[in-house]
Amino acid sequence: MITRETIERAHDRIKPYIHRTPILTSRAIDEIAGCSIFFKCENFQKMGAFKARGAMNAVLQLTPEQRSKGIATHSSGNHAQAIARAAKILGIPSYIVMPRTAPEIKKKGVRGYGGQIFECEPNLPSREATLAEVIAKTGAIEIHPFNNYEVMEGQATATKELLEEAPALDFLLVPVGGGGLLSGTALAAKFFAPRLKVIAGEPMGADDAFRSLQSGKIEPSQSNTIADGLLTSLGDKTFPIIRDHIQKVITVTDEEIIAALRLVWERMKIIVEPSGVVPLAAVLKEGETFKGKKVGIILSGGNVDLAKVSKWFA
Amino acid sequence: MITRETIERAHDRIKPYIHRTPILTSRAIDEIAGCSIFFKCENFQKMGAFKARGAMNAVLQLTPEQRSKGIATHSSGNHAQAIARAAKILGIPSYIVMPRTAPEIKKKGVRGYGGQIFECEPNLPSREATLAEVIAKTGAIEIHPFNNYEVMEGQATATKELLEEAPALDFLLVPVGGGGLLSGTALAAKFFAPRLKVIAGEPMGADDAFRSLQSGKIEPSQSNTIADGLLTSLGDKTFPIIRDHIQKVITVTDEEIIAALRLVWERMKIIVEPSGVVPLAAVLKEGETFKGKKVGIILSGGNVDLAKVSKWFA
Repeated sequence: MITRETIERAHDRIKPYIHRTPILTSRAIDEIAGCSIFFKCENFQKMGAFKARGAMNAVLQLTPEQRSKGIATHSSGNHAQAIARAAKILGIPSYIVMPRTAPEIKKKGVRGYGGQIFECEPNLPSREATLAEVIAKTGAIEIHPFNNYEVMEGQATATKELLEEAPALDFLLVPVGGGGLLSGTALAAKFFAPRLKVIAGEPMGADDAFRSLQSGKIEPSQSNTIADGLLTSLGDKTFPIIRDHIQKVITVTDEEIIAALRLVWERMKIIVEPSGVVPLAAVLKEGETFKGKKVGIILSGGNVDLAKVSKWFA
Repeated sequence: MITRETIERAHDRIKPYIHRTPILTSRAIDEIAGCSIFFKCENFQKMGAFKARGAMNAVLQLTPEQRSKGIATHSSGNHAQAIARAAKILGIPSYIVMPRTAPEIKKKGVRGYGGQIFECEPNLPSREATLAEVIAKTGAIEIHPFNNYEVMEGQATATKELLEEAPALDFLLVPVGGGGLLSGTALAAKFFAPRLKVIAGEPMGADDAFRSLQSGKIEPSQSNTIADGLLTSLGDKTFPIIRDHIQKVITVTDEEIIAALRLVWERMKIIVEPSGVVPLAAVLKEGETFKGKKVGIILSGGNVDLAKVSKWFA
């Protein structure tokens, strides 16, 4: 069970290994959006994404015996680097299953932390089958990228930090892929700021969370978006938390994601990956909802394959 | 005459209108460079570059009579926006001569501040002739982008801030175009940290400052580099200060500039324009000089034409 206390303990546990990332504001973007936005810059987090939090929290709780055979996971990118980094810090091996289509910069990051990569097809069955093989062979313990309470607790600490520093927010928006950040955010909001409304931003080309909330069950995902961190569907641990604690999901097109990306790069002069600006795209899309309000946004990551940039800003 | 006191007064004068920009460090880049680098992030300055400082300092010292007919300048980009912004703050007109090849984002910035653009050919004679016409027509007063003591004083305030916050530095590197930032930096170092060695980074494709120091007179510039903010040659006010107070100029190729750009974008997750990373390229090139030292670098600006990015990171 995740409680106020388990999130606080997770924060104390991971603090030596993560950045307390800055909160930035932009007068130019506030004027365009018609509200006051407080950006929690997890693009400046260790290895470039909030995933450093959850992975570190999970790995630090393994017993010496569990650690001895190493850790394994499947991930489209940032969790992969986070696991490899956590393993390196603890001096244990890591085995990472990644879709062959994952951005090269993320694979490079995994290798840089000494992680061993196993490539699979870019779909969930192939990921899971490949991971099962790797675990059978190595005896490593799996740290799931999102369907894991310790990972969720770790992700929740980004919201805890934001709420400690920003003024009282009306809304908090995060992107949703598998729902680790979103469920952690929803619970942190519940415990630390009960009146705060949590909203998810999701690409239309991978709108399984939106559809899952409509149908009341976990819907499969597609992968038709540039937001390559958000291609997975929800898990059986993240879905109920999301269903019970968030206000809604706003879906946005890739064109809207690129427009938000351009705004952040040009006006704030910071590098955020497409997945990270999906919540800003959502705020710009539903301007009326947020008009005059104080809005928190977690800029989830900044690991961009620069070779792809030309496609976005042609 | 620029003194410690005139720089201090300039800083007090412009403080309400500029950002005190953050100083960032990167463990990853320090490891690659073999030294400790303190990046003064003028890419986060108002309008995206240090030029906001000098322009504001000059414009604030005009008499009401001088202000009445507006201000004019020629600039390849960032000074143009800085002048248009300063004019807007004071409620007076601005007339900006820009090379037709200047990045669209910089022209857009000028128009956004209400500046009126006059296009010219990308060379100094055309710039000066067009500016003379504009001044004859409007009666506006010229604020030169660098060959102006009040502008230099304003640019010097970036170094003053850096020295107030960073630990005792061994070296301070800035890019050199016309030499406004470099001369201001050299004087600020002289007055506030006399033992600090100031070094300029310059593109090989526009290495007029390097050649000017060799020949002892102002050499004309070429324009064969992606560092589009550094195409101008030195002025008769900046040259003697640079000659007398800096240690040397390190020249770098466009390939070295792009490698430094990629490092800053990928590792620090911040947007800096090619001109702004020239000093980092210089530090990486002459690694032995800086080994184990504390090195300040002014990341001069972050106004990038995203349409051009594909050429750099192909």
